[in-house]
This record gives sequence, structure tokens and C-alpha cells, in this order.
Amino acid sequence: MTPYFNEAGSPPNSPQAETAALLAKRKVEDAMLAHLDNLTKPRGSLGALETYCIKMAGIQNQVPPLIRKKGIYVFAGDQGITEEGVSLYPSEVTYQMVLNMLSGGAGINALAKGTGWEVIAVDAGVAEEFPPDEDLPPKRACRFIRAKIGKGCRNFYKTQAMSAQEAAKTLEQGKSLADDAQKQGYDLVAIGDLGIGNTSTAAAMLMAAGFSPDEMIDRGTGIDQERLEHKKRIIREAVALRKPAQTGEAIIEQVGSFDLGMMSGFILGLAGKGIGCVLDGFPVTAAAYLAAMINPKVTEFLFAGHQSKVAGHRPVLDKLGLSPIVSLDMHLGEGTGAVIGGYIIELAVLTARTMASFSQAQVSGKDIVEEKY
Amino acid sequence: MTPYFNEAGSPPNSPQAETAALLAKRKVEDAMLAHLDNLTKPRGSLGALETYCIKMAGIQNQVPPLIRKKGIYVFAGDQGITEEGVSLYPSEVTYQMVLNMLSGGAGINALAKGTGWEVIAVDAGVAEEFPPDEDLPPKRACRFIRAKIGKGCRNFYKTQAMSAQEAAKTLEQGKSLADDAQKQGYDLVAIGDLGIGNTSTAAAMLMAAGFSPDEMIDRGTGIDQERLEHKKRIIREAVALRKPAQTGEAIIEQVGSFDLGMMSGFILGLAGKGIGCVLDGFPVTAAAYLAAMINPKVTEFLFAGHQSKVAGHRPVLDKLGLSPIVSLDMHLGEGTGAVIGGYIIELAVLTARTMASFSQAQVSGKDIVEEKY
Repeated sequence: MTPYFNEAGSPPNSPQAETAALLAKRKVEDAMLAHLDNLTKPRGSLGALETYCIKMAGIQNQVPPLIRKKGIYVFAGDQGITEEGVSLYPSEVTYQMVLNMLSGGAGINALAKGTGWEVIAVDAGVAEEFPPDEDLPPKRACRFIRAKIGKGCRNFYKTQAMSAQEAAKTLEQGKSLADDAQKQGYDLVAIGDLGIGNTSTAAAMLMAAGFSPDEMIDRGTGIDQERLEHKKRIIREAVALRKPAQTGEAIIEQVGSFDLGMMSGFILGLAGKGIGCVLDGFPVTAAAYLAAMINPKVTEFLFAGHQSKVAGHRPVLDKLGLSPIVSLDMHLGEGTGAVIGGYIIELAVLTARTMASFSQAQVSGKDIVEEKY
Repeated sequence: MTPYFNEAGSPPNSPQAETAALLAKRKVEDAMLAHLDNLTKPRGSLGALETYCIKMAGIQNQVPPLIRKKGIYVFAGDQGITEEGVSLYPSEVTYQMVLNMLSGGAGINALAKGTGWEVIAVDAGVAEEFPPDEDLPPKRACRFIRAKIGKGCRNFYKTQAMSAQEAAKTLEQGKSLADDAQKQGYDLVAIGDLGIGNTSTAAAMLMAAGFSPDEMIDRGTGIDQERLEHKKRIIREAVALRKPAQTGEAIIEQVGSFDLGMMSGFILGLAGKGIGCVLDGFPVTAAAYLAAMINPKVTEFLFAGHQSKVAGHRPVLDKLGLSPIVSLDMHLGEGTGAVIGGYIIELAVLTARTMASFSQAQVSGKDIVEEKY
């Protein structure tokens, strides 16, 4: 399972290696399409499922691809910006919800169980300290990784979200979690978010990256137009005050957070590992956008698990060139949309692996080309 | 699990019974919403999953609903209209594909396995005779129900598709399969189609029911514009020649088929049984439309599993008031879209049943109302 972009004989990153890698990938994708066309169905009739198979084949450099084990990493952290009253829920809910997840009571536990994902809760920067392992909920429904960079990032309306050293450490920690994913044997990972106020951080990161404020903070909660206007003003002013350089690293340092920054590092660390990665909603996609600013090739192994109800989500997916697998008006976070979309990728792979071919089944009509409905 | 529309004390079908049933259903749905609002998530944040839970609660008259067992009935049959050259595949493929399904090699076998559905192949009217059970594939991946009304329906371009007696028998047989579903203990069923040329029959049935030809036969196969024009002409002329009365029964008799008519009967037979039913693509939805002409209440327990790539599918779903659960550009039939959409209903129910409440998890913020994004 050598990933295609490392396999050429030329020196890494040389133009020859790039070209060889592209050709090798094309070859794998063509072989996957040929495999699909030989199954007992009209050509192309599995629609997007065929697209997901082809993408996974390219990622794994393997025809057909194989998904044996899946892990959803939920990155939890507190956002200093909540001091400015941008969120409805109090910040302590982040901590409470991590405990809820460890006990198996969160939405992601239910949906991950129903779709066969292992859940990994990551304390990237929750404000409160977690008790020692022996005092955590006795029957843990998920792994717990202690990767706290700090007790919540700073309020980026007042000062930069974190120091340059903390930003570097956040990205590094994310990369080491990608090593964990490889060690665990995951063929597919997903990313979830858990942090009161993290849509504010995500909006700030994306505005700093050039997205328009109106697209990014269009969230009407229906109960408090005043609070929404307040949130818009705070984030707009904060981004103007911090004015980070146009790099992923600088944006994380100035208006990011430990949890979202660690997701970016996680995605960067997955490059070259032959693992597919499914994004959840707006905050996770914002983190992916920053990762793609640092290494544009990451989109080659990213999938958009779902389209959330948060208005800013779609324009970012579009810019990344990713189409959401499902669109169920969800906006819960935690990776709940990602595990559903990711399960459909697994179903696609399963179907490609287990359907009969025309010759096996003695069914007529293999050569009928039916490309477009 | 008494279905709500049978529970009132008044005589069945009286206006009083109708009103009582409606109020009882509303009460169950309200109770389901209250249950959802008490789970550890922002209100409404599970989006469409909450809608599916509420609908299933109404269907089962139970809060929260429960899905223990699911069955996908795939109705196979040959269409006389294939004599007119409306289809790319030869008619014998229907028979071959049923055998493929019995051996476990069809797309529906893979997807049903991955989503926990039992597969039931129904010979509603395949032209060829199947061998006796002992000569069928030894390791059957699905049940096989012999319900053949005839060896393919007649060519409705030349004469009516079946006799009035056959139409009545087709509907009755479908209803008895609904009894089978109840006996098997299915809480959720899905319907799949298998029959070369059945999109032509579906288009004819819907045009006879008042849909416009251009909406219903907009399928460009990309290889043979001539054949498409031919298909359009044949179906348009056939409907004009048969001009059935505007009832579901007459349409089945004149321009229907054994397999599609049996699906309509199946849906009619499910009424009052407290079982949810997930539709697949264009042919199945056409059958559901005829069932709804006969009994408009059937839409109360129907779900649209997916939106297929066939252009005529969406207008029919819209008219039935059903929103597709997923939209994956599939157009394989066999129930492949229905089992994916139906699995998302099951995930929704599972989530509602297993998530912690705010008080269980000691999470703050239960009273925060967040209705609209």
C-alpha cells in the first residue's frame, strides 16, 4: 500500500517525480473504473459511489480499495473568543460534552456505533483539566488522547490566539495524531469538532484567508438578531486587528484555536500515508482549508462527509473542490455528519469488492455503454 | 404498536375517527420532538434525522420508535413493451439478474449486507420459469418468493398490459406480501425493482396519471439519440391508444406491469400495519404514485430513499410530498438507493434511542432554544 505520490524512482518533489506520480495515480484510477465497468450493473449506475471507489483506489494505490478499520478523531478545545459573548452555550459545556462522549452519551457515539467507527476524543485545548484516567467514566465508549496545548486559546479579539511556539506545537501534535491513525491501522479516518464558539473561530480563520464576512457569518439563530450582529462585528473587527499574514500557520497563530489548528496538523500529517479522511461541518472544513493552504495536495485524500446547515460551509467546500456526500441539514458537529458520509464510502468499496462480474454471473450485456442519463 | 389510524373508538373511516386519529398522531409526534429536545445537542441540530424519527414515531405510534428488522422486497418482472426496442438490454437479463441476486452477486446484495437488510426476491412476472428450489443457487443470499402472475405482461403498445382479473390478482398478491412483511417482523421495509424496460412502463403509468411526457422520458443515454426519440414516441402513442381511466387500477391494467402493479398492492397492504416503507428510484416511485391514487394516506408511512439520476423521478416525489434522503446520482435500481436512505432512518432512530439526556449527562444548556440556522 505505498501511496502513489511517493513511489517514483526520481528524487522526491522533482518535476519528474511529480509527473510519474500523476501517471501512476491515473493508471490506478483507470484500473478501478475498468473493475467497476465489469460488474453486473449498467455502466456508471452506482453514481457517486463509483467516484468514491475511484478516489479511494487512488489514495490506497490499490484496486479495489479496502476499508478494514475506521477512526473518528474528535478534537475538543475552548475558544477564548467566547469571552465576547459570541455563543449561546457557556464555555464549560465543552468539558461536559467531552465527558459525555467518554461515557458514550453523545450524538457521535450513537452514530459511530451504528456505522462502525472507533471514536477517539482528543483534548487539544479544553479549558478545564480532566481527572486522571482512573477517575474518568468507568466504561469508556471511546479512547481519550491528552494532547492539551493550553487551557483554551486566548481571546483573539484582544490579542493573538496563541504564540508562534504554541501554533507550531499544535500543528506538530496534529501530525503525531496522524501517526497514531496509521499505527491503529485505519484505512479511513474522520474528523469531528467539539468546542463552544468554534464556528466563530472558523469564520475568523476563513475571513483571514480571504472569504467574505457575509458568507461566513450568515448564521441566524432565530432568537437573537442582536447577538448575531454582535458576533459579526466582533469577528470582523478581530480579523482586522490581527491581520495575519496569508499563510495557514499565521492564521492559526492569530485567529485560530488549539483544536482547529490541531485538525490542520492532523490532515497535513496524513499526506503520503494512504489513508482517506472525511471532513465534518464548518469548523472542520475551515481547518482543512488552512491545511490546504500549507499543502494543496491534501485535497487528494479528503472527502466532504456532509453539507451542514451552517451557511458558510458550502462556499469553502466549493473552493476545496469537494462535493458533500450527504446533505441532511445537520449542524451538531462532533463528526456526526462525517461518519454518515464516510459510511457511504465504505458501502461503495464493499459493493465494488463483492458484486459479481458479468462473466461470473453469466449475465448478458457487459458491452453496453450507458454513460450519461 | 397499534397504528395510530386504527386506534380511535369511533367507527372506522367516520369523520370522528379521522379527527381522533389525527390528534393522536400529533400527540405522538409532539412527544417525539420533546424527547429529541431533551438530548445532549442543540435543538434541531440533527436536522433531517429528527424529521425521520418523528415520522417513524407517528408510524409506529411509539416514542422513541424502534427498528429491529428490515426487509427489502425486490419485485422482478418482464415488460411486454421491450418488444418495441425501448431498452438497451435484452429482456432475458431480468431472469439472469434474479439468479445473480439469489447467488448474492447483485448490487443490492452488497448494499443490503452492508446496511443490515434481509433481501427478498419476488418473481412477480418474469418471462422465464425458474427452476425448482433444489436447482436454484445452493447458498441463497436472499429469500425467493414465487408470485408470478404471468410470463411477462403484454406489450401495451399493441394491447392492454394485462386483463382486469390479472390486475386485481397483481394488487392482491402485493397485499399478501405486506402480510408477509408483518409476519416476518419487519419494522421497516424497502422496495426495489428489477425488470428490463421498467422505466418505460413507469413513464407510461405516470403519463397516464397526468405527468407530462417531456418530464417523464427525459433520459438521454448519450449513445443513441435516435433510440431515445423512438422510446418517447412509442410510450406517448401507447398511452394515447390505451387511454386508461384516471384510477390506479385502470392504469395498472392498461399500461402497467406485474412487478410494478404488485409494488402498488404491497404499499396498499402496508396501510395500518405500523411499518415504514422506503422507496427506491423512478419505477418504484411510479408504483407508489398509483398506490397513493388509490389510497392517499399511504404517503404517511412512505420515505423517499434517494433521488435517482433519472430525470422523471423528482417531479413525482415532489407531487407525493416526499424529500429524498440521499442524492448520489445512482440509477441502478434493485432497491440500492432505498437501502442506503433507509439505513439513515435506522441511524436516526438509533441515535434518538441511545443519546444521553441533558440531566443524565449533567450538561448545561438544555433550555437554549436554537431553532433556525
